[in-house]
Parts: sequence; structure tokens; C-alpha cells
Amino acid sequence: MHVKRVKVVQGVLDANNTIAAANRADFNRTGVRVVNFMSAPGAGKTTLLERALERLEALESDLRVAVLQGDVQGSLDADRLARFHDVPVAQINTDSGFGGECHLDANMVRTALPSLPLGEIDLLVIENVGNLVCPAEFRVGEDARVMVCSVTEGEDKPLKYPLMFRACDLVLINKIDLLPYLEFDLSRLLANIRAVHPGVAVAQVSARTGEGLDAWLDWLLGVAGRAPRAATVDASATPAS
Amino acid sequence: MHVKRVKVVQGVLDANNTIAAANRADFNRTGVRVVNFMSAPGAGKTTLLERALERLEALESDLRVAVLQGDVQGSLDADRLARFHDVPVAQINTDSGFGGECHLDANMVRTALPSLPLGEIDLLVIENVGNLVCPAEFRVGEDARVMVCSVTEGEDKPLKYPLMFRACDLVLINKIDLLPYLEFDLSRLLANIRAVHPGVAVAQVSARTGEGLDAWLDWLLGVAGRAPRAATVDASATPAS
Repeated sequence: MHVKRVKVVQGVLDANNTIAAANRADFNRTGVRVVNFMSAPGAGKTTLLERALERLEALESDLRVAVLQGDVQGSLDADRLARFHDVPVAQINTDSGFGGECHLDANMVRTALPSLPLGEIDLLVIENVGNLVCPAEFRVGEDARVMVCSVTEGEDKPLKYPLMFRACDLVLINKIDLLPYLEFDLSRLLANIRAVHPGVAVAQVSARTGEGLDAWLDWLLGVAGRAPRAATVDASATPAS
Repeated sequence: MHVKRVKVVQGVLDANNTIAAANRADFNRTGVRVVNFMSAPGAGKTTLLERALERLEALESDLRVAVLQGDVQGSLDADRLARFHDVPVAQINTDSGFGGECHLDANMVRTALPSLPLGEIDLLVIENVGNLVCPAEFRVGEDARVMVCSVTEGEDKPLKYPLMFRACDLVLINKIDLLPYLEFDLSRLLANIRAVHPGVAVAQVSARTGEGLDAWLDWLLGVAGRAPRAATVDASATPAS
């Protein structure tokens, strides 16, 4: 049975790649750059997105951003973004099939595209379902992938979920304001990230205190073609001293 | 395509339930009680398990426990448990199929059973892959299910991952030692848990300070038939004042 199942899954992944290419073609045609934003549940994706949108507002940036929210159920995160009046937000709920899909796939994203004004935006941020496994396996037509890893999750996560860390162009290490209260070895996390994805860009951030958020916004601007992508992100991942 | 896929998945779930029943029969025949232990990545499952095993050692309990560790890759958690010399530990890695299965299923557990001395243990704790979606969908033949929800993950998780919270007999709210450093409303989390699973047993714990761990151990002893299961677990989920 196990072999059969793998075949079914491979078929699903092939179909996914075909649809991801169709999404990609639509994004290219309309000039939209796309970020696939991933993490474990509660690592801080939505809050980091709010901080970036606030900064773009404060800078009076002309970058036009839209967000596609993926959740098993509900629209809590989309609701949080409603205050950004210039940011179109679409919601995908994955609970219609199965007991709830644990990831977005290219077809789900494709289904949502008609509800987004692709011709009027520059950057689409796709906030994936909180999960460190399957979201890394399904391309959705994105230009770049970023994941958030919170320091409260422990140093071992890159070794336990290597595909997610390998699939990413940027790792945001979030909640660094909590470091004084944790038994957490940041240099060990950084070494583990390097072990599974040598040279990946890493930024240490705190959505709460604002530390490191310039690097996060610069990276987003870079994906959108507005600035050198890795300008202020430390690809050598040296621990803050 | 989406409808077809749901049918495939339903077939997988039916096959899973058949194998889960076979596991159940083996557990019943050998007198083993089984706990399925679930959470998001980094919520603290392994540490809470270590604390429970330490307490059983300190109590010189005659309860014989074994652990089945589920991870996408590696044996980091199993290695952490190696110091408990009387606790047999078996490891399942889910990375053989797919890019890595995001959950344990009944067949994976069944494959691992020959490596565990079922006739010589009373309680088997199955530590699932860190994920709040799919592990809740696959029964593995367990008697009871417990999940860990860390306060660093935010108050909204029961609303975003309702199946996981509904599928559980006990919710452990972990890392309560961090509450003073978080913008976190514990009563909102408790209300959200109640909204999706009225009456579920809830215990507030800190694996670090030891707070609440008696309730966790009592619950495990209860599953193993050694004590009233809900003796010290607060099923009304009143916030600690």
C-alpha cells in the first residue's frame, strides 16, 4: 500500500507543478512578484506582515501589495489586515477537502487569483498554512520563499524539518526579544540552519520591539525589484553579540 | 481534479482506520494503553515527556513506559530519551515516501510495533510529528490523545486548527513561565479552547519551572489505569489567577 500511495502523491506533485507554472505565467504577464511566506503555527507570520505593511505606509511607498491568506478555517489573519485599506486581501480556507489540508497548493492559489487585482499590484504575499512540512513541498508559482522560525521553538528545528529550511531564500528568526527568558542557544540554531542550507540569508527580528525589521522590509522590497535583495540581510548568519 | 483527490484521501483514511483497529487489537491483547501526543513544532512535547519520565523514576513507579518517536528526519528526540534506561524507545522517520510525511499514520505505527516489547510495557506514548493539522486526522490505535499548545503560539490557535483541539482528551498549555514577557491573554485562549471543544480537560504547565506537571503525570497514570484520569486536571479550564 505504501508504494501505491507514493505514486498517487507523485501524481499530485506533478499536477501541482503544472498549475504552479500557469500561476507563474499569470504573475509574469501582470508584472507581479510573489512571496510564499511559511512557518510553524504561531511563529509570527501575520504580525511580521503587519509590521512590513505599517512601514510601507510610513514610508509613503508606492509599492502596491496584496495578500493571499491560507488557513484551514476562518479568516482571523485576513481580518487583522483589513485596517490596511490599500492592501487587497483574499482568503483561502483549506478545510473543504479532507479534514483540512495542511498546506496551500498551486491549484488553491489559482482558484483565488480571480479575486485579486493582479494588474494593479506589484507584490503578492501568500501567507501559507502554519506547518513546517508540506508547504515546502508545494510550489505555488512564487518568486521567493521566506520562513519564520521563532526562538521559542528550540534550536533543533532545521535538523527536524530540513526541507522547509532548504526550500527558503530567507529565514527570519523571530521573537528575539524573548531570548533573555529562554534557555536557548542562538549560535546553535544558526549552525543548524547553516548545516541544512549553507549560505541562506538569515535575519534576526522581533515583531514586538521592531529590531531587525529593516532587513525584513528591505528583503521584500528586493523581491519586488525595488532594492538589492540581500543588502541588509546577513547571509553569513553571525549571531548578534 | 479536486474531487478526485478527496476520493483518494478518503480511501487512505479508510485504510488507515482498518490498520488502526489492528493496532488496537494488539494493544488490547498485550494490555498496553496508548497515548497519541501531538503539537505544533517546538511546543515542548519531548521536554514534557522527559519531565513525566523523571517523575516516574523519582516516584519509583512500577509503571513500564515505552516511547515511539515520530519525526520527518533524524532521531534527536529519541536520543534525548536514551538516558531513561528502562524506557524502550523506537523511532519512525516519515521522510521515506514523499518529501516527508507530516504525520504518523496507523501503518507507520504498525511497522514499528515489532521493535517494541509490547508484552513488557504498560503504557506506550507515541510522540507524533510536530503539526497541528494532519496528525489529528489519522488514528493510530490509541486510547487517548493529548496535545500541547504553547502560550508563545498566540491565543487564536484553537480557532485556526479546530480539528486538533477537538480530537484531544487533554490540552496542555505549556510555557506558562513566559506569560510575564508576552502580550498574551490566557483567558482568551481558554475561551477559544472551550468554543471548539467544550468540556475538554486543560492543564496549564511549565516544563521549565515544573508548575502543573503533577496534573500531567496524573493524567498519564489515569490513561494507564493507575489513577482517576481527571483527578487534578481542571476540566473547567479556569485561568490561573
